[in-house]
Amino acid sequence: MLDEARQTIDDALLTRIDAWWRAANYLSVGQIYLLDNPLLREPLRAEHVKPRLLGHWGTSPGQNFLYAHLNRAIIQRDLDMIYISGPGHGGPSLVSAAWLDGTYSEVYSNVGDDEAGLRELFRQFSFPGGIPSHVAPETPGSIHEGGELGYALSHAYGAAFDNPGLTVATCIGDGEAETGPLATAWHSNKFLDPATDGAVLPILHLNGYKIANPTVLARIPRRELEHLMAGYGHTPYWFEAGFDDEDHLSVHRRFATLLDEVLDHIATIQRDAREGTLDGRAAWPAIVFKTPKGWTGPREVDGHQVENTYRSHQVPMSAVRGNEEYTRLLEEWMRSYRPEELFDDDGRLHPDLRELSPSGPRRMSANPHANGGLLTRDLHLPDFREFAVDVPVPGGVIDEPTTVLGRWLAGVVTSNPDNFLIMGPDETASNRLSAAVAAGGKRWLGETLPTDDSLSPTGRVFEMLSEHQCQGWLEGYLLTGRHGLFNCYEAFIHIIDAMFNQHAKWLKVTREIPWRVPIPSLNYLLSSHVWRQDHNGFSHQDPGFIDHVVNKKADVIRVYLPPDTNTLLSTYDHCLRSRDYVNVVVAGKQPGPQWLTMDEAIAHCTRGIGIWEFASSDGGEGEPDVVLACAGDVPTVETLAAADLLRQHLPELRVRVVNVVDLMRLQDEREHPHGLSAREFDALFTTDKPVVFAYHGYPWLIHRLTYRHTNHDNIHVRGYKEEGTTTTPFDMVMLNDLDRYHLVIDVIDRVPGLAAEQAVLRQRMADARLRARLYTREHGTDIPEVAEWAWPDARARGLPARAG
Amino acid sequence: MLDEARQTIDDALLTRIDAWWRAANYLSVGQIYLLDNPLLREPLRAEHVKPRLLGHWGTSPGQNFLYAHLNRAIIQRDLDMIYISGPGHGGPSLVSAAWLDGTYSEVYSNVGDDEAGLRELFRQFSFPGGIPSHVAPETPGSIHEGGELGYALSHAYGAAFDNPGLTVATCIGDGEAETGPLATAWHSNKFLDPATDGAVLPILHLNGYKIANPTVLARIPRRELEHLMAGYGHTPYWFEAGFDDEDHLSVHRRFATLLDEVLDHIATIQRDAREGTLDGRAAWPAIVFKTPKGWTGPREVDGHQVENTYRSHQVPMSAVRGNEEYTRLLEEWMRSYRPEELFDDDGRLHPDLRELSPSGPRRMSANPHANGGLLTRDLHLPDFREFAVDVPVPGGVIDEPTTVLGRWLAGVVTSNPDNFLIMGPDETASNRLSAAVAAGGKRWLGETLPTDDSLSPTGRVFEMLSEHQCQGWLEGYLLTGRHGLFNCYEAFIHIIDAMFNQHAKWLKVTREIPWRVPIPSLNYLLSSHVWRQDHNGFSHQDPGFIDHVVNKKADVIRVYLPPDTNTLLSTYDHCLRSRDYVNVVVAGKQPGPQWLTMDEAIAHCTRGIGIWEFASSDGGEGEPDVVLACAGDVPTVETLAAADLLRQHLPELRVRVVNVVDLMRLQDEREHPHGLSAREFDALFTTDKPVVFAYHGYPWLIHRLTYRHTNHDNIHVRGYKEEGTTTTPFDMVMLNDLDRYHLVIDVIDRVPGLAAEQAVLRQRMADARLRARLYTREHGTDIPEVAEWAWPDARARGLPARAG
Ligand SMILES: Cc1ncc(C[n+]2csc(CCOP(=O)(O)OP(=O)(O)O)c2C)c(N)n1
Ligand SMILES: Cc1ncc(C[n+]2csc(CCOP(=O)(O)OP(=O)(O)O)c2C)c(N)n1
Ligand SMILES: [Mg+2]
Ligand SMILES: [Mg+2]
Repeated sequence: MLDEARQTIDDALLTRIDAWWRAANYLSVGQIYLLDNPLLREPLRAEHVKPRLLGHWGTSPGQNFLYAHLNRAIIQRDLDMIYISGPGHGGPSLVSAAWLDGTYSEVYSNVGDDEAGLRELFRQFSFPGGIPSHVAPETPGSIHEGGELGYALSHAYGAAFDNPGLTVATCIGDGEAETGPLATAWHSNKFLDPATDGAVLPILHLNGYKIANPTVLARIPRRELEHLMAGYGHTPYWFEAGFDDEDHLSVHRRFATLLDEVLDHIATIQRDAREGTLDGRAAWPAIVFKTPKGWTGPREVDGHQVENTYRSHQVPMSAVRGNEEYTRLLEEWMRSYRPEELFDDDGRLHPDLRELSPSGPRRMSANPHANGGLLTRDLHLPDFREFAVDVPVPGGVIDEPTTVLGRWLAGVVTSNPDNFLIMGPDETASNRLSAAVAAGGKRWLGETLPTDDSLSPTGRVFEMLSEHQCQGWLEGYLLTGRHGLFNCYEAFIHIIDAMFNQHAKWLKVTREIPWRVPIPSLNYLLSSHVWRQDHNGFSHQDPGFIDHVVNKKADVIRVYLPPDTNTLLSTYDHCLRSRDYVNVVVAGKQPGPQWLTMDEAIAHCTRGIGIWEFASSDGGEGEPDVVLACAGDVPTVETLAAADLLRQHLPELRVRVVNVVDLMRLQDEREHPHGLSAREFDALFTTDKPVVFAYHGYPWLIHRLTYRHTNHDNIHVRGYKEEGTTTTPFDMVMLNDLDRYHLVIDVIDRVPGLAAEQAVLRQRMADARLRARLYTREHGTDIPEVAEWAWPDARARGLPARAG
Repeated sequence: MLDEARQTIDDALLTRIDAWWRAANYLSVGQIYLLDNPLLREPLRAEHVKPRLLGHWGTSPGQNFLYAHLNRAIIQRDLDMIYISGPGHGGPSLVSAAWLDGTYSEVYSNVGDDEAGLRELFRQFSFPGGIPSHVAPETPGSIHEGGELGYALSHAYGAAFDNPGLTVATCIGDGEAETGPLATAWHSNKFLDPATDGAVLPILHLNGYKIANPTVLARIPRRELEHLMAGYGHTPYWFEAGFDDEDHLSVHRRFATLLDEVLDHIATIQRDAREGTLDGRAAWPAIVFKTPKGWTGPREVDGHQVENTYRSHQVPMSAVRGNEEYTRLLEEWMRSYRPEELFDDDGRLHPDLRELSPSGPRRMSANPHANGGLLTRDLHLPDFREFAVDVPVPGGVIDEPTTVLGRWLAGVVTSNPDNFLIMGPDETASNRLSAAVAAGGKRWLGETLPTDDSLSPTGRVFEMLSEHQCQGWLEGYLLTGRHGLFNCYEAFIHIIDAMFNQHAKWLKVTREIPWRVPIPSLNYLLSSHVWRQDHNGFSHQDPGFIDHVVNKKADVIRVYLPPDTNTLLSTYDHCLRSRDYVNVVVAGKQPGPQWLTMDEAIAHCTRGIGIWEFASSDGGEGEPDVVLACAGDVPTVETLAAADLLRQHLPELRVRVVNVVDLMRLQDEREHPHGLSAREFDALFTTDKPVVFAYHGYPWLIHRLTYRHTNHDNIHVRGYKEEGTTTTPFDMVMLNDLDRYHLVIDVIDRVPGLAAEQAVLRQRMADARLRARLYTREHGTDIPEVAEWAWPDARARGLPARAG
């Protein structure tokens, strides 16, 4: 097999590879510069040049070179390979490749494979109404935007997991390599199983520069960089070219040989692993590809060296239009690729060059893994109803939502052994998903000790202490059509705010691209949330990820705050069935009262919002005097406790309790697909009664979501207002005025007439707060009247009991 | 000097060091577990034990060990040293050290240095009303929270820059080392000048585990880890202890010797560099400190191994109260440190142990660098008025705001050669601060080439392609009392959302701690913003950092959107003089019209919000028919262009133009110190007239800020609604309905009566949008009527001219 693969690479083939490289370079320059005259059939004139020159040349020739050679290897070895372009700002490179192998014209019929098509290919690039300047969702073959640098390698690993036949060639910019996420992503190799996963081939594009500076890795001694790669657990293969006048054939010959060695090395590792003869962890190959930035581009412009300096990063000459000197330079540069040898009279690529691209789905630009929805299989989901907590009466039982969810997830993991992963930054047990860990095992290819727990080379739970890595791996896995979940402390999910942005943007754009097939949703489970960060403190309290996500397109954003276990189960079942969304689910891991039976939970989650009749005291008819609304598990408890107090002290007051699971229901229907109509909203929240809203997160979000609704001015929100430390759970809610006593005070203050009448009750509530606070200071725990509080119906039956 | 430093470390001293270590361990356990009976003068009983056990034991003994030895070295070498605890969750460790050296009782008079103090020390830890469980602002000697892991090393380097006499000992958790930010932070050594900066001593705390898993670095072969450290440019010093029954004296002896070697190595590097004899880049020492997690703690609990496993991460035995077995185990454990040998009858530390701590400001817990405000010197700021753009008439001149700011910053850099730094992820030139780069040079200790630009080992601009690194370095620099600025693409500043959170939380807490002295503000300059990401596209468009920051405490948050150059200069002068804030300034780098003279700019910035009389057509008296409000440079242009159109087409309409520089002025005065009173707000925005608000960012933020104000329901906001790609500037605003034509439509739709009357004008505006869009599709640039638009007063004079 390996020997067969090693077919001859004769000079004739190398010559053609060089021609293909020239073609790709030509197309890259053409996209950046030309409006017209794509084949330079006539001398270049001002009107052929774009008035605004936008794009990145510097990285393109190196990537074109790699692409040419990878194509050769794919054909000769029949490889199933995708390509991830870390420096995805080099959009022209991947677009060129896709045009050269025919995919581009297949998916975009307006861009033909002839001269007219070429003209359109050039024109549309970075042009209004055209395509973006980066490798983007619009680029066939890509699962990676590459605008925000740092995620190439973790995306690559995510794609390779559970894809034993796939090889993911990954170009990493030497600038990109300076980012934190990329720097730690090298360690992904300790989580890849050579037997059941595919291969990742990292290619460090050591072109020496970033935008305006040299790169760190280019300015340390070669030996140091080789140490670094070895320290990352790789076998470095060093390739250097373009800095002298070695002829191109020789350069290609050297690279082809090196690439064969590298691919043989990968094949050997995989064979050994699959035959069970691999000794220890594999030292996977990685290529250090040292070539000049802007290779083959203009050497000098305006007396400044350009090739092999940062000056070639974007457009080597800007403002070409109308500048004769630059126009001449540009024409010379483009002609240096000898387009007349590459394209026929119709402007089509010569057939012998076209043959250098693989065909059909073997083309990296047409590989179905890079359009993951094509390969998506639905999950086999255990019936979540079977995991229901039995709730004899509201508040009658105490249970831990994520613990129960973990049991269901254990079923998901075992029923989908190659189609579902759980990611967590060392918090999956802390978030109490231990059942899923036990069922799936934790992925680990490092050394193990007898004292270790649940570690396995094929584990289904991935735990590295890097939120970036978890997010990047999961994105790669989803984008190639599989399913997964990321569990994280709520506060620290902000670490991946920027990555989330990019993924949400990707989803938004792909929804508008007909040939992109929907992929499984990105599912977050944020536990250990702001109200129950018991071991930690202020630094671990931040419910603002929700605020962050709702800035993205409503079409792709879903936020759920299930108040108890059965609603959590129902919510998550829904999430794992969905496509093309980002689902943010915030759920507690601490024991808490359970409110709804499974049937009620399903109905409540289907509505997303609803009146809790059992908790309301308005008799279910007529307008209430006040609405107590709540979203989130802890706010729900405080709201019900407040409702209980109101029943006791103000039995005449008509209180309606509304619980929100699906936060987006609060928006107007014109703003979000889940939004309520004005009529529905008014029915729930009235048009003029005070609403006291206890919310899990930063209170102003509720205002931002509801500002279009009639009764908005009467909504009074309590939530986290950035007050906290290491303290008891009830002290936390008191610090933020979200506690039951304060909610009662809010009701008294807002319901017309009560303030004057109920001054004594108000004062008692204030005293109760004080008493509760003092109790914590003395005992270190919450006052029993709070800690042991139970909903009246449960209390009446001597409940709650702990679920068993 | 070095020889002198190498004083004898005899067994007597080592014995005392061991006793100090035992004392620190004892105190660490005591803090986690005990409410009372701090010296175990009586048998441990249930009521002596805390009811809620919160904290992290696992990391503490290792850090206590390091602290003991660093203290010895500080005394013997008279070192100026601070300590950064990466695994800052080990709060007990640093609190113990500060109590043992007396600082704690000095700053917290309620915690004396005797038995009563000890009782309070124990009780308050993770206790309601007490102190947080982590190393926190409340912890003397810390500049680092360590709750959110990953930033220890970049904080350390930030502290060391421009502090040639300082050594920053930095403990890095092996879990923490898996994070992206930490993984790239090792490369900071290519940015540290051994001659003019201090030293950073990284100590990798290889205790094998994180919360629930082994760590990656603990499970690769020693040789691989050494390669990694060498690849990072360090000389690794390996220390391993605690895994066998080597006696403690021998362990201490070995570590003391190793530490001396390491400190000698640092001293040699510094001496050589300062004498000019250093050859090449220094391979600074780094210690790999391999010791068991939970060292000296319980070996086994409930039949599970605890010491040297992840099970020792938090509390080795939880729920001790009432559990006799655990109580006995705890007592045994604590007595194993032999408290009777460590504390005298009054509970004071024995004097011969106290002597092991340095004295006065040499104590790491009392080192002024760790309370940076103590050392803060005001900046010497060039008079920004001298950099003013001459604005003969509004809109009469075109200039690039950040280019001009760069000139002023050049002055700041040169006038404050060791007190001000500029950070940027390779974008400082792209953001057009080139003058500052030229003046200060760019920091670079890697190899250099003749073609390089402005690189220098003492450069004042730091550019590494890691937003985390920029942020972490700057935080370290600020927290040690110096000044700086972080310039970044607006979209990618989200990369440090989580780091910003931690810094803002730190500032919030320090403001409540009397002994913490205010430090210089954290200043952001976000350029290359959402509206002008010309070379890039959708992935580079995100104005949501503002939304993120305003969730933090109003006391520390300031957001500015200067509409032109003179307002930017005035704003930044203000920012660089401020303390304890986070200042977010969003400013364009593209050429744009200049509106205000310097005097007007100063007045406008001082107000933070104001009516632009020149642009209003309401004659300055009486109520307007409509308010056009704007915040941000591009929205200001569109608003003025809309005002121009309205003047032409609806000359009778009374239009008031309000510009907002200081976004927080929009909040209510009860919400933010800069907030307007109801009266002020109503005066500007009226109580009932339509307000069409053109905003730089996500529109809903304006609703969230203004929801308490009377006229809120009439505010109609346009902003970025997540629509974009690579296109022309005007196409971008059109995609988001923020363009002048749409603003006119909004006015027609909102001003009572106009909709019916002005259907033709409305249609013309829609047509103008269409025409503008089609023009871009054909020409690739913006239609001249937009691109060349000028404010009427300027137009009348044949302006604008380009500045400069
Ligand atoms: C996280 C992030 N920060 C900053 C940028 C701005 N930026 C765009 S390209 C670039 C330089 C990239 O250099 P490198 O990775 O070496 O790519 P190449 O040299 O191949 O262009 C930078 C800093 C970015 N895209 N992403
Ligand atoms: C960024 C981040 N993610 C997750 C956590 C949760 N967490 C707290 S401690 C810890 C393990 C830390 O391990 P290590 O750095 O080795 O410290 P040790 O306690 O072993 O000294 C984790 C994952 C965190 N604090 N920060
Ligand atoms: Mg590069
Ligand atoms: Mg550890």
